[in-house]
Amino acid sequence: MSIQKLSLPSKAIICEVAPRDGFQMEADWIPTEEKVKIIRKLAKTGVKSIEVTSFVHPKAIPQLKDAEEVVGTVIDEMNGIDLRALVPNLKGAERAVLAGVKKVKTMLSATDSHSLSNANATVKDAQDKQAPIFDYASKENIAVMGSVSVAFGCPFEGAVPVKRLVEIVRRYNESGVREISLADTTGMAHPKQVYDTLEVLLKEFPHITYSMHFHNTRGMALANTLAALQQGVTHYDSSIAGLGGCPYAPGATGNVATEDLVHMLEEMGVSTSTNLDELIHAAEYVRNIISVDKDSYMLTAGPSSSLHEEKTEGQKKVD
Amino acid sequence: MSIQKLSLPSKAIICEVAPRDGFQMEADWIPTEEKVKIIRKLAKTGVKSIEVTSFVHPKAIPQLKDAEEVVGTVIDEMNGIDLRALVPNLKGAERAVLAGVKKVKTMLSATDSHSLSNANATVKDAQDKQAPIFDYASKENIAVMGSVSVAFGCPFEGAVPVKRLVEIVRRYNESGVREISLADTTGMAHPKQVYDTLEVLLKEFPHITYSMHFHNTRGMALANTLAALQQGVTHYDSSIAGLGGCPYAPGATGNVATEDLVHMLEEMGVSTSTNLDELIHAAEYVRNIISVDKDSYMLTAGPSSSLHEEKTEGQKKVD
Repeated sequence: MSIQKLSLPSKAIICEVAPRDGFQMEADWIPTEEKVKIIRKLAKTGVKSIEVTSFVHPKAIPQLKDAEEVVGTVIDEMNGIDLRALVPNLKGAERAVLAGVKKVKTMLSATDSHSLSNANATVKDAQDKQAPIFDYASKENIAVMGSVSVAFGCPFEGAVPVKRLVEIVRRYNESGVREISLADTTGMAHPKQVYDTLEVLLKEFPHITYSMHFHNTRGMALANTLAALQQGVTHYDSSIAGLGGCPYAPGATGNVATEDLVHMLEEMGVSTSTNLDELIHAAEYVRNIISVDKDSYMLTAGPSSSLHEEKTEGQKKVD
Repeated sequence: MSIQKLSLPSKAIICEVAPRDGFQMEADWIPTEEKVKIIRKLAKTGVKSIEVTSFVHPKAIPQLKDAEEVVGTVIDEMNGIDLRALVPNLKGAERAVLAGVKKVKTMLSATDSHSLSNANATVKDAQDKQAPIFDYASKENIAVMGSVSVAFGCPFEGAVPVKRLVEIVRRYNESGVREISLADTTGMAHPKQVYDTLEVLLKEFPHITYSMHFHNTRGMALANTLAALQQGVTHYDSSIAGLGGCPYAPGATGNVATEDLVHMLEEMGVSTSTNLDELIHAAEYVRNIISVDKDSYMLTAGPSSSLHEEKTEGQKKVD
């Protein structure tokens, strides 16, 4: 009898985005030394990559106005960790490079509505504005990753057609970008969409490294991860303690929690090189410092591997 | 260019288990008329099946001591809905039949530890005790569904070997049972395990109808559903508003919420015959009546299809 097991990659690379995507959603000021302390804890978990901040205008996101200071403090400690920063424009890229960052991530929305709302420019205009960033990065010899916000669903326009994504990836590709982050910014992607979209993108641009950024707003982030894994995708963003949110659904869950993502991956035999206990420890720390109550199944239920003592009485009958 | 899309069943059948698995976890008494009211609301959502109560000893689960009254009140209203009740033993089956139930679900644990803890008997002894239920059901001409608690992971013993499940399904099969519920009672299953386990069971016993009962204790219920769908499984249990819990992780999420499951399925084009708006309405009602705060992404974030008005200013930059 031939048994066809589920085929998954043997390894996955986790990028911890709490210091950027998580912190930026927090209204209350997180002191710089606290940010640094959290980043140091994250570095100890074994994650291969950290999105450390965003070099955005301080007035746009005051929480990240200490980008230079944060990067300057931690950059020499991050041995073997791929440190990247989000840059919304050339000015941001220049600040990032000056601070010592070796990899920047650019921002782009998949839809005009979101792009106009977020960057006050159509997608086409936003793409044109990215050209100087790419030129500058090339000149400075730093790596560039291109991101696509609302890549699967837009809170204003609904589902994003695959054709649209193909156009956006093509433009990035023509600009020399070889690593692309597909962000489900508001948690609208579903697993079939993720699978089918990646099928098209991987066929069309097989040399591009795709990185998945799933929010768990509608509970589908781990299912979407499974679908992407089945397409062989190995790069995933997540946020410790589920830090972050969804600007269009106040109170809703944001980024999938790193500890939950890692737990599922490791349970399935997909190695992440991280230490789940350290991640849970870091998540508990973050929960104590930053008052959030986002999804973190690990913080509530613990890993599957933490077994219980048998009880022989007083146990409710369950099924 | 040949594009291989994700292949999923076109339809899924949802069994709403809140009136049994949800209510039994509630310590505070839910008045019989309130139970009936909720069941009536559930019946209006279009679900094809409702697990309406458990004919368990009133001392074991006082919350369900009104099983006869609940069934007696609603049974003639459930047109086209497959109404089933859990029965832990022959006495329970007799009570169920007397109340008018046409389908019973028997209980069995996958591991001796859980079986001893839950039913004070080894798996073998529990199986022997089921024989009279099957004989009785056959004589009374009512349908029997066999369930397997902790089918994927046991809180005392850890992961359940597939071999063990094969033995259990074989015994059920020999007893004439053709529909089997595989319950991830404490949310320990992971998608690869679900896929690989079903691969074996479906090859070994292709004539059995498998029904998946996933708890979302560790956030993997929807990912596990995706894995089971990919094996062609079409029967899923879920609980409105995520009602229910995990006795080994107090405060943790229990059953996957019906509205979240249906949302994912319908987004993927898997028809459930239910009305998501009615489900969300029922979930809101239940949340107001029974003080629970379990996972329900739909109650917090709403469906992907509920789009927002564009804003052009004051919008935080997000990715």
